[in-house]
Amino acid sequence: MEAGLIIPKWELEDRQPVVGIIGGGQLARMLYQAGISIGVEIRILAFDKDEAAFAIAKHVEITDELSAANLYHFAKRCDVVTFDHELVDSLVIAELEERGCTIRPGSKTMSVAADKAAQRRFLSALNIPVPSFVVVNSFPQFQSVASMMTPPFVLKAATGGYDGRGVLMASNIEEVAQVLGMGEFEVSYVVEPYLALQAEIAVLSVRDPQGNIVIYPPVLTIQEDAMCVEVRTSPNISGDLLQKAQSWAAEIAEASNSIGVQAVEYFIVDGDLLVNELAPRVHNSGHLTMDASVTSQFENHLRAILELPLGSGQLLTEAAMVNLIPTQDFGHQRPDLGAALSNPAIKIHYYGKSARPKRKIGHVTALSDDPVSASKIAWEAARSALSDG
Amino acid sequence: MEAGLIIPKWELEDRQPVVGIIGGGQLARMLYQAGISIGVEIRILAFDKDEAAFAIAKHVEITDELSAANLYHFAKRCDVVTFDHELVDSLVIAELEERGCTIRPGSKTMSVAADKAAQRRFLSALNIPVPSFVVVNSFPQFQSVASMMTPPFVLKAATGGYDGRGVLMASNIEEVAQVLGMGEFEVSYVVEPYLALQAEIAVLSVRDPQGNIVIYPPVLTIQEDAMCVEVRTSPNISGDLLQKAQSWAAEIAEASNSIGVQAVEYFIVDGDLLVNELAPRVHNSGHLTMDASVTSQFENHLRAILELPLGSGQLLTEAAMVNLIPTQDFGHQRPDLGAALSNPAIKIHYYGKSARPKRKIGHVTALSDDPVSASKIAWEAARSALSDG
Repeated sequence: MEAGLIIPKWELEDRQPVVGIIGGGQLARMLYQAGISIGVEIRILAFDKDEAAFAIAKHVEITDELSAANLYHFAKRCDVVTFDHELVDSLVIAELEERGCTIRPGSKTMSVAADKAAQRRFLSALNIPVPSFVVVNSFPQFQSVASMMTPPFVLKAATGGYDGRGVLMASNIEEVAQVLGMGEFEVSYVVEPYLALQAEIAVLSVRDPQGNIVIYPPVLTIQEDAMCVEVRTSPNISGDLLQKAQSWAAEIAEASNSIGVQAVEYFIVDGDLLVNELAPRVHNSGHLTMDASVTSQFENHLRAILELPLGSGQLLTEAAMVNLIPTQDFGHQRPDLGAALSNPAIKIHYYGKSARPKRKIGHVTALSDDPVSASKIAWEAARSALSDG
Repeated sequence: MEAGLIIPKWELEDRQPVVGIIGGGQLARMLYQAGISIGVEIRILAFDKDEAAFAIAKHVEITDELSAANLYHFAKRCDVVTFDHELVDSLVIAELEERGCTIRPGSKTMSVAADKAAQRRFLSALNIPVPSFVVVNSFPQFQSVASMMTPPFVLKAATGGYDGRGVLMASNIEEVAQVLGMGEFEVSYVVEPYLALQAEIAVLSVRDPQGNIVIYPPVLTIQEDAMCVEVRTSPNISGDLLQKAQSWAAEIAEASNSIGVQAVEYFIVDGDLLVNELAPRVHNSGHLTMDASVTSQFENHLRAILELPLGSGQLLTEAAMVNLIPTQDFGHQRPDLGAALSNPAIKIHYYGKSARPKRKIGHVTALSDDPVSASKIAWEAARSALSDG
């Protein structure tokens, strides 16, 4: 744990803190928006001008490579640096830390998060259950593992995957050979059996450098093609499981020395919880907190990394969030906001980036007394936003 | 009413609309923040770099004068222009409209709002009660009016006043002479008797160009030295009065051809309502909608001027907002955010401008099941934010 009793430099100097965000996507955009309330200067390091944060943020720098030198040049002009993605090598983060940069979350948290195999080993060491898994680096290795398993097989790239990219579901060994080749794989893969999921839920933790933790209420997450499409409050799941999901999220935050938001994604299989994945950052499963909670995940992430007291994560209403994901035949660049907003209980968050199939370009959140009605309203809004009629 | 069936240009061109805001204060800052969600490009015309919006907005232009030429140069590059203040001459707005600029609210609404005497006459014509008043332009005129009244006298500058500036409470005629001189006054003054106020409330309307209206729930407003210091939900006032306050707000919005948010401030005197003042813009009495309502006043203002469907103004929780107003002995530039946020039910909105006595530099909103508790928590937070301990 970091020492928490030193007064931050920007407070001593009676000025607003400068937060750097590595990555300029929608998470950076929504962090920027939240930061306006608490008077922080946010500087963003993006790859290109089409990223979601570029259009709205005052200070954006463009880089072509997340090298140690580029990141150091960026970080040394910030009081605290945080992330919009997990694409930075944790060894690079460790080097920046050694050079005196304040990176939150730090290299320990990021090294666990960046590698699905490391996540699983870390969780197992905490006695927190995960799906059974084997890590393979080549087709022959996969073959010998597969011979002991019942198909279908699920292979997840240990690094670099997101939104279903890097996940392969194969009904037999030959399909794997076709997709990944018969030699060494480009990255390690976590191989797991196909699990009959009863549901998936997620829990967000926010932890500050002093070790204070706020746990958000669990939410139901609904996937299609391994991509999250909907998130809904108050999952219809036993209170015991929900409690366990929250206490594990707190334990994981503590053990991984998390600072800021960390999402824990759970499978529910045979009436029990397995941790599927960790994400050490603001997360799609927390987008509804912008409209439905006392404090959004984005504001609480900033509060945590800036050593400000954490805000309540309490829900003010039930809600459902649906991602806006264009299909092949979406001919526009912008969703139809007018159609989406025709129900007055709908909030929209458009990311201002160009539309491509399977790319999230925004999300809608419906607020209602009842999460099932909210879900219905949110889907209607999302469909109207993306339809051509 | 504007014709509402024409598809806005930016929708035909499948691009985000460009909204210009005249004025770069905290209202512009909070409009900018809200605009990020609905994908609007906001350009701001400010007087100087110390204004609240400058530090966070991507496109800010600085001007030294709100002349027709300067405003036209700004407005012609925007799809819609709106305001952070009422300092623009309504004749200038009318000229911009004639030259094809879309200004919302338009010259009719602004001409009523910009002049307290015009407001009172406009309301009287609608048979909506206002305090009895006389408009005077010189000390001799005031003297003859005052001779028929019982002191103390309240004089309000018809134009240019805000936050208690331009309001003079005098216990006798001589005090008025001392402050305003014995000749012609620089501006017209509305003279009214001192009223024993039981309470003050405010109601926000939002109206779009098609004439759709959303009315927010009435809030209690609390003044000190003629400056709003606190706003609280669910005033403890008869339902009949609250209903009347809301229906008058709707009637006023319609009759003044308001587009966007308009605030109506009411006095409660002898158990009945009098309209004190109109403000044709997002308003201090609506700041708590950012944290306590389905749709904030800032988002709904933008939705209205962009012809997007209006969002619900429903409260999700009771709440109280307290303005952060430094006193003479506040030695810092920034409020102490850490102290203010020590209660997890507190939200803060810091405006990022330099601190001066009697200048609002931010506000805190407390969320609670009960507005009286919310008020207590909000005041504690505001005091901690501005104290030196």
